[in-house]
Amino acid sequence: MSVETPTLSRERFVRWDDPTALADAGRTMSGREFLEAMLHGDLPSPPICHLVDFAISGVGDGQVDMTLTPQESQYNPIGSVHGGVIATVLDSVMGCAVHTRLPAGRGYTTLEIKVNYLRGITRDTGPMTAAGRVVHLGGRTAVALASLSDKTGRLYAEASTTCLVFDLPSTAAA
Amino acid sequence: MSVETPTLSRERFVRWDDPTALADAGRTMSGREFLEAMLHGDLPSPPICHLVDFAISGVGDGQVDMTLTPQESQYNPIGSVHGGVIATVLDSVMGCAVHTRLPAGRGYTTLEIKVNYLRGITRDTGPMTAAGRVVHLGGRTAVALASLSDKTGRLYAEASTTCLVFDLPSTAAA
Amino acid sequence: MSVETPTLSRERFVRWDDPTALADAGRTMSGREFLEAMLHGDLPSPPICHLVDFAISGVGDGQVDMTLTPQESQYNPIGSVHGGVIATVLDSVMGCAVHTRLPAGRGYTTLEIKVNYLRGITRDTGPMTAAGRVVHLGGRTAVALASLSDKTGRLYAEASTTCLVFDLPSTAAA
Amino acid sequence: MSVETPTLSRERFVRWDDPTALADAGRTMSGREFLEAMLHGDLPSPPICHLVDFAISGVGDGQVDMTLTPQESQYNPIGSVHGGVIATVLDSVMGCAVHTRLPAGRGYTTLEIKVNYLRGITRDTGPMTAAGRVVHLGGRTAVALASLSDKTGRLYAEASTTCLVFDLPSTAAA
Repeated sequence: MSVETPTLSRERFVRWDDPTALADAGRTMSGREFLEAMLHGDLPSPPICHLVDFAISGVGDGQVDMTLTPQESQYNPIGSVHGGVIATVLDSVMGCAVHTRLPAGRGYTTLEIKVNYLRGITRDTGPMTAAGRVVHLGGRTAVALASLSDKTGRLYAEASTTCLVFDLPSTAAA
Repeated sequence: MSVETPTLSRERFVRWDDPTALADAGRTMSGREFLEAMLHGDLPSPPICHLVDFAISGVGDGQVDMTLTPQESQYNPIGSVHGGVIATVLDSVMGCAVHTRLPAGRGYTTLEIKVNYLRGITRDTGPMTAAGRVVHLGGRTAVALASLSDKTGRLYAEASTTCLVFDLPSTAAA
Repeated sequence: MSVETPTLSRERFVRWDDPTALADAGRTMSGREFLEAMLHGDLPSPPICHLVDFAISGVGDGQVDMTLTPQESQYNPIGSVHGGVIATVLDSVMGCAVHTRLPAGRGYTTLEIKVNYLRGITRDTGPMTAAGRVVHLGGRTAVALASLSDKTGRLYAEASTTCLVFDLPSTAAA
Repeated sequence: MSVETPTLSRERFVRWDDPTALADAGRTMSGREFLEAMLHGDLPSPPICHLVDFAISGVGDGQVDMTLTPQESQYNPIGSVHGGVIATVLDSVMGCAVHTRLPAGRGYTTLEIKVNYLRGITRDTGPMTAAGRVVHLGGRTAVALASLSDKTGRLYAEASTTCLVFDLPSTAAA
C-alpha cells in the first residue's frame, strides 16, 4: 500500500514468530507467569515488539517496564518519533501491568488510552524506559498509569488507560 | 533488542526514505500542498507509514483520510492488532488534518491524544479507513477528532487530540 | 468548609428534591422512559441540575440535549465558567445518551471522561446547548461523544466517555 | 431553568464574593502568593468553591491539595456524587498546581482534562482529598496529574490535564 518510489534507500528486516502459540499460552498461564516467561525468553515476544522495536525489561506485581529504542523507521513527517510509537509502548506497559494481576483464565482488553506528550523524541534521545502500574483492579475493570523517561529520568510522556477484565471463554479440549 | 529465538519464522522487509528531505519540504510548503504532494507520490511517505503499513488516501480542508491494512506484524500478545497501531493511524489523520489548515511557515506538534477502542481488529477485519477532521483552530492550539471504520462503515475506534500550532523557526539560507 | 469572610455579597438559593425516589424510578423504567419523564416534568431533575443550573431539553434514540446557563456562581478564580461545570454537563448528556438505549433492569456507570476546551465561557456567552450521542453500545460497555455550543452553533467544548453497562441488582419485593 | 415542582424539599443557600477582585489579584501576584492568600483567607475563594463545596487545603511548589465534602446537592440521577463534581475538584487542583509555578504576569488556561473514575462516591464516603501535581512546565504548555482519595488513602479517581501558559496582557495603569 505504501507509495513506492525508486528512492526508498533505508531498510529494516523485521522477523517475528507465529503469534498463535503466544496467544494460546496467554489463555492457560497467569499473567505474571506469562510475562515472566516472555521476559526470560521462554516465550517469544509478540509481533508488535519486533516491528516497533521495544521489549519487556521488568515484571512485578501490578508493574511492568519496557525499553524502547528510538530510531528513524519510527519517524513521522515532521522529523521525530511518531506519537503512535510512544502510545504503543505506553499502552503495552499498562495492559501488561494489569495482566500481572490476573490469574489463569482471566483476560483483559483495552477500552481507552490517553497520552500526554511532554517533549519530542529523536534518535539522539537514546534508549527509553516505559513504566506501567495498576492503580485499580475491580471485578470488571482496571485502571493503569504509565510514564516514559530517558536514562536520566527526564519525563517524555504520561498515559492512563481503562481495561475491561473478564473470564476467558474456556476452550474445548482436543 | 528483541528476544532472538531460532523460531522467528515470519518476516517483513521494511523500506523507507531518508526523512530529512520530507521534514525540510514540510517547512517550506503549506500543509495542504505538503500532504497533497504526499498523496500524489511527489513526496515520499514518512518512515512510520512504511513500518506500520498505512497510507494517506484523501486530503481536504481540515480533513485527512488514511488507509490501514491490518496484519500479523501489528499483533499484540493477545492475538489482535495492537491498540498502539490504531493510535498511530488516528494520531496521523488528526495531526495531518490540522496541518491542512496551516500556511507555509507554521508548524504543529501533538500535545495529547485519547483513543476509545470499540471493537477488536484482526487480519480478517480487512482494510480500514481513518478519517480525521479539525473542530477548532486558534492562534496557539488546534483540536481534531477522528474515527476508524471498516469498508461497511462499522466503527472500531474514536479519537481526539490537542495540537500546539506555532511559527516555525526560520532556517538560515545557504 | 468555605472560607467565611464578611464580604460574601452574592447569593443563590438552591432547592432540590430527595433523589432517592428518582434513583428508584431509574431502576424500574427504561432509560428512554425515565429521561422523557424528567424532560416532561413528571420526574424531578436530579440535585446536580439544580446546583449547577442545567436541564434536559431533548431526548432521542441514543441522543440527549441539555441547556446550560452560564452564570457567576460557576466561576473559577480566573474569571470564567469553571471547566468542571462544562465537564458536568457534557458527562450528563453522554451518560444519559447511553441510558436512552438501556431497557428497564439495565444500568450504567461512567468509567472515564475526557473534555477538550476550545474557548472560554462567561456570563456574556449566553445559554449553551450540550448534545450527547452514543457511538457504540456493547454488552458490557458503551462509548459516547458530546459537544457544547452556543446559540449560533459555535463550538466551545468536545468530550468523549466510556461507560460500563450491566444488569441492575434486582431489589427484593416488599 | 430548573423544572419547578411543588415538592422541592431540600435547600442550600450558596453565598460568594464578586469574583472580579479575585481575578484582578490573580493578574498582579505570583500563583504561589495568590493561592496561599486564598488558603489563609486573605483572598476569597472563587464562586465555584462555594457552589460545589470544596476548598483549598494545601499549597506547595507545583502541588495543591483541596478538600471536597460529598453531599446530596451534588447527586446525579443514579444516586451518587456526579462525575462532574469530581472533575471540577480535580481540574481545580491541577490548574492551581500549574499556577504555583507561574510568576506574576503569567497566566494559564485548561486545554483538556481526562478523569478515570475508580469507585462511586456518596455522602457516606466522607471528606475527600484531591491532590494535584505538575509533571511538566514548558514555555507554552504544562501537564499536571491528580488523584482523589478518602481519609484512608483509598483512591476514587485519577486525572490528567494539559494547560496553555502565556504572558497575561498588561493592563493599563490608571
